[in-house]
Amino acid sequence: MATINDNYLKLKAGYLFPEIARRVNTFAEGNPEAQIIKLGIGDVTEPLPEACCKAIVKAVEEMGDRATFKGYGPEQGYPWLREKIAIQDFQSRGCEIDASEIFISDGSKCDTGNILDIFGHDNTIAVTDPVYPVYVDTNVMAGNTGDAKNNGEYEGLVYLPITAENNFTAEIPSEKVDLVYLCFPNNPTGATATKEYLKKWVDYAKANGTIIFFDSAYEGYITDPTLPHSIYEIEGARDCAIEFRSFSKSAGFTGTRCAFTVVPKTLKGKASDGSDVEIWKLWNRRQSTKFNGVSYIVQRGAEAAYSDEGKSQIKQLINFYLENAKIICDKLTAAGLKVYGGVNAPYVWVKTPNNLSSWDFFDKLLHNTNVVGTPGSGFGAAGEGYFRISAFNSRQNVEEAMRRITENFKL
Amino acid sequence: MATINDNYLKLKAGYLFPEIARRVNTFAEGNPEAQIIKLGIGDVTEPLPEACCKAIVKAVEEMGDRATFKGYGPEQGYPWLREKIAIQDFQSRGCEIDASEIFISDGSKCDTGNILDIFGHDNTIAVTDPVYPVYVDTNVMAGNTGDAKNNGEYEGLVYLPITAENNFTAEIPSEKVDLVYLCFPNNPTGATATKEYLKKWVDYAKANGTIIFFDSAYEGYITDPTLPHSIYEIEGARDCAIEFRSFSKSAGFTGTRCAFTVVPKTLKGKASDGSDVEIWKLWNRRQSTKFNGVSYIVQRGAEAAYSDEGKSQIKQLINFYLENAKIICDKLTAAGLKVYGGVNAPYVWVKTPNNLSSWDFFDKLLHNTNVVGTPGSGFGAAGEGYFRISAFNSRQNVEEAMRRITENFKL
Repeated sequence: MATINDNYLKLKAGYLFPEIARRVNTFAEGNPEAQIIKLGIGDVTEPLPEACCKAIVKAVEEMGDRATFKGYGPEQGYPWLREKIAIQDFQSRGCEIDASEIFISDGSKCDTGNILDIFGHDNTIAVTDPVYPVYVDTNVMAGNTGDAKNNGEYEGLVYLPITAENNFTAEIPSEKVDLVYLCFPNNPTGATATKEYLKKWVDYAKANGTIIFFDSAYEGYITDPTLPHSIYEIEGARDCAIEFRSFSKSAGFTGTRCAFTVVPKTLKGKASDGSDVEIWKLWNRRQSTKFNGVSYIVQRGAEAAYSDEGKSQIKQLINFYLENAKIICDKLTAAGLKVYGGVNAPYVWVKTPNNLSSWDFFDKLLHNTNVVGTPGSGFGAAGEGYFRISAFNSRQNVEEAMRRITENFKL
Repeated sequence: MATINDNYLKLKAGYLFPEIARRVNTFAEGNPEAQIIKLGIGDVTEPLPEACCKAIVKAVEEMGDRATFKGYGPEQGYPWLREKIAIQDFQSRGCEIDASEIFISDGSKCDTGNILDIFGHDNTIAVTDPVYPVYVDTNVMAGNTGDAKNNGEYEGLVYLPITAENNFTAEIPSEKVDLVYLCFPNNPTGATATKEYLKKWVDYAKANGTIIFFDSAYEGYITDPTLPHSIYEIEGARDCAIEFRSFSKSAGFTGTRCAFTVVPKTLKGKASDGSDVEIWKLWNRRQSTKFNGVSYIVQRGAEAAYSDEGKSQIKQLINFYLENAKIICDKLTAAGLKVYGGVNAPYVWVKTPNNLSSWDFFDKLLHNTNVVGTPGSGFGAAGEGYFRISAFNSRQNVEEAMRRITENFKL
């Protein structure tokens, strides 16, 4: 009889966002008049940039004409998009990244999960705590962990706490890990990394043969000119890092779907016979065999993000969300709360007052102000006592949510 | 040091289509005046149906307006698309398939590879020979096979030969297999399956706890009203089959990317403790965690395939390619070749004359007529002595290719 992948049974059923939805629905049923404002899930709300819309419509016209119709595209993405990315996102910042090292995909969530396909099951894997849950769950599903422990952690993973005490930047581990996930600007804490900090990781990785999975889906939110946008701004990172990028939070592509992953050709892993194998070749084979490329019309939309018009519109979008984040930070601070992040990131990470648990704060905020956020403990044990508020919403909703918190929230 | 997935090293480097490209390029360089016609790769050439284009443009307009903008959609696809599929593709044919059992994706190639994520590594897996290479390669990559043998087969897989002798429909295996891939209308042979034949497989699967992966990406090409379009037309298939469908070859979505997979809620697999586990729950978890849904605008395009206008335009498209297939069959038969398929399928499967090997026929055809097809041996050892010609091309190219073969090809 067909057997299943037993590792799936290790996954905890109570996933964060379904539990939030359950509590919100229960509250809404009991309080049908309540005007609930959701600052929970990290999803954009502003329309797609006009430049992207125009480019997609033009591409649809091409698809409707036999002379310009496009069938299967390259699994790795069209050269015209890969080249713009390589030049504008990397070479312009002094990163030696070639277009052939850019793999266009339909999402960073997919890529950060799928990347595990090409690695062995005997690697020691480190994640931060709190962390984007997909990094953990995909390792569980791939069989890279043991069972869940009572505190929600999984046996076999190395957890690196990030809290106010270490400025939400993980200490370099004293032990040796083979793969490590880093996310800057960070989801959920909104923390950023300096070049000096990333250099420590690159040095560690090169000394230990570690590969860094660097998730920079929120790099567009960096406004501080001293902060690196890419790990490849650090010398040596080509030999030890894969970078994940997305159009979701910059160009508002969460519902349009386009992202990319950078795999330098100089990056190597070990085969079981001890020989070195180029990671690029494995990922290229993986994508060629299990993926068929991103929709042509969507790639044309992503390309428009690199036009002058597109860049200007995206800058406006990001500034809009960053202004939301500033309002949230200012108002919550004025209300007596301690906040982190929200400056070079769309997330504000709030310390719960009076030692309230994350979920107690969630319930209190929901009941007193009808505002929904995300409990920090949902991102990991070290997120307990924190709370994430997202800047992705209309100005009106953000201002109304902050007004309610300022006026009605009893600390 | 980070270790790699060693299973990738088992994959043979010389994949079929790169080798074809190499030989064609070499020929083209030596014969720059040659007008090469490619009837090799199975990619559509006609424009996207107008109904789909219109729906996509309308959806882009929605994305450009704050009031109608769509962020993340359901990972499983939008209900309005899943419902139309359930009703029009399944319930209208008497198949008890609910909308919640339809998972929208960006491609059947992705889904047939990714489905292995949720199964154990101890399953005995059967494929036909010849076969769509992705079924085999994804099993190699997942660690479900041993090494490659000299004849190109992999240790540990069960190969079911399909040749003229069995009408290109595999015998029901005498041994027990846990997972089996069936593809009808078949790529590469163009063969079809009757209800009686599929019933034998369903009976076998139910008796042995086998799960059938039924790939019906070409079901739109079925014109014979007695042939089943879905395996769920067979009683009992809900308990033993997953079906893969695509908009690629029907609505011409190869470059637009939309497909779906049907996982009935009654389908079960075994956990290692012997308990039954619902496959639907595992696939739902896999897609929720490792996928973020198909682009909203593309799903709106796919939805238009179910409108009256869309259905009529798709019928025209398919009839066009089927007419190409008929021309190919007629002309090759007149040229003295034995052909199969090409009636309810866009592929014509040609027996090579005079015991020519598949690659010798490829070279002869390329050199004598400048026509490119696909050597049958590239799809598996039992494909040796056969050759695939695709009906996906313009009428002019198909007619010119057939004229050259009729006039210039020396048997």
